Amino acid sequence: MTYCVAMSLDQGLVLASDSRTNAGVDHISTYRKMRIWHRDGERVLVLMSAGNLAITQAVVAVLDQQARADDPERSVMAVASLYDAATLVGRAVREVHQRDAKPLKEAGVDFNVSLILGGQIKGEAPRLFLIYAAGNFIEAAPETPYFQIGETKYGKPILDRVVTPRTDLTQAAKCALLSLDSTIRSNVTVGLPIDLVIYRRDSFKVDNHQLIQEHDPYFENIRNLWGQGLNNLFQVIPDPPWAV
Amino acid sequence: MTYCVAMSLDQGLVLASDSRTNAGVDHISTYRKMRIWHRDGERVLVLMSAGNLAITQAVVAVLDQQARADDPERSVMAVASLYDAATLVGRAVREVHQRDAKPLKEAGVDFNVSLILGGQIKGEAPRLFLIYAAGNFIEAAPETPYFQIGETKYGKPILDRVVTPRTDLTQAAKCALLSLDSTIRSNVTVGLPIDLVIYRRDSFKVDNHQLIQEHDPYFENIRNLWGQGLNNLFQVIPDPPWAV
Repeated sequence: MTYCVAMSLDQGLVLASDSRTNAGVDHISTYRKMRIWHRDGERVLVLMSAGNLAITQAVVAVLDQQARADDPERSVMAVASLYDAATLVGRAVREVHQRDAKPLKEAGVDFNVSLILGGQIKGEAPRLFLIYAAGNFIEAAPETPYFQIGETKYGKPILDRVVTPRTDLTQAAKCALLSLDSTIRSNVTVGLPIDLVIYRRDSFKVDNHQLIQEHDPYFENIRNLWGQGLNNLFQVIPDPPWAV
Repeated sequence: MTYCVAMSLDQGLVLASDSRTNAGVDHISTYRKMRIWHRDGERVLVLMSAGNLAITQAVVAVLDQQARADDPERSVMAVASLYDAATLVGRAVREVHQRDAKPLKEAGVDFNVSLILGGQIKGEAPRLFLIYAAGNFIEAAPETPYFQIGETKYGKPILDRVVTPRTDLTQAAKCALLSLDSTIRSNVTVGLPIDLVIYRRDSFKVDNHQLIQEHDPYFENIRNLWGQGLNNLFQVIPDPPWAV
């Protein structure tokens, strides 16, 4: 399993993913799930993926190959808008589907993939897209400023309570880490390290890319403070008046 | 969807369920998902169910019918142990499966049901069981003092942080309500009212049965305090040292 979360904010974008992949609990490995394409001063694109690892790797490989060609119709390094880039991602998904879906189905494996694409291309504002296994996609909006893929439920309550388009990038990064912490704690198939990118609007470069490893002092500290804080909060919530 | 949670504690049992059921968002109704059988001084059994409402109602109807007969081999009101009662629940699930599974499958509907049975019968300690759609079941243990069925993920983090066998009944009831609150907030198909039972070990009666309706002052109060408290806690968690 995987957990990725991305937020579209007035100040820019925050994107974070875990690195655990598994095919049964006896085969758990670390693969990073974030791919970044950028040309400083012009474009930054961050792609995160969840689902069958063979499929997500194939999709990224198709996009990487096209990116090298620099064709404005076919390359994420050359398209004029993030919408066009999301279209390319969807097309890559469909290409892999055409090649692999039937043999996978015969082997009893679902064609399971979802992707988040965020970034900014000169000439437009930062944008954030969620791409489905069918290759279609939706864009984040002020009412829905974040997307999640993979094991999304454990980490959702904190996002619902904290994230609005006005949340600043620092608070949003902190919230993304706490959302990942809740998920890692409740699901053994989601794990460190965490890839986290902070993109500041109109900077057109990868402003801040953190790889948070096991024993990272800041992450350990906030995990402990959050856990203790929740327990303390629970204690001060009044008891039911009707309790025995 | 449904959410039910039950805890097996040194002091007794706490069981809580929501009352929302849906078949598509245009058909959301309120059905209580908790069935209680008791004979004061001798036995208390509480059954909670999640899954296809037609199936869960059929299972409860089978058990109710048998309970009236008072046959020690077939009635939850007459069996000698909670293990035997769980066996009866499993058998009722299999009976309904035999009758309904094939026509359901032809209609494209999964045979989807899971149940929690908790209580105490004179001669043994309180016990708690989780019964699957196949009619098999597991029992709670000190390492796993709680069970959830239905929409379980949103409400799990608070349980993982708070509940141990030493948690007292009052704290456990408070924790169950906060777990339900997280679920109701994140999933529109889980909703009030909440049925909540507190059973104190060796009392052999339903010590405390609350029906928590919309605008219940205590529940509204702790929802607000919990939400504000989480936001305050988030604010005091230190910001990342590497933030831009």
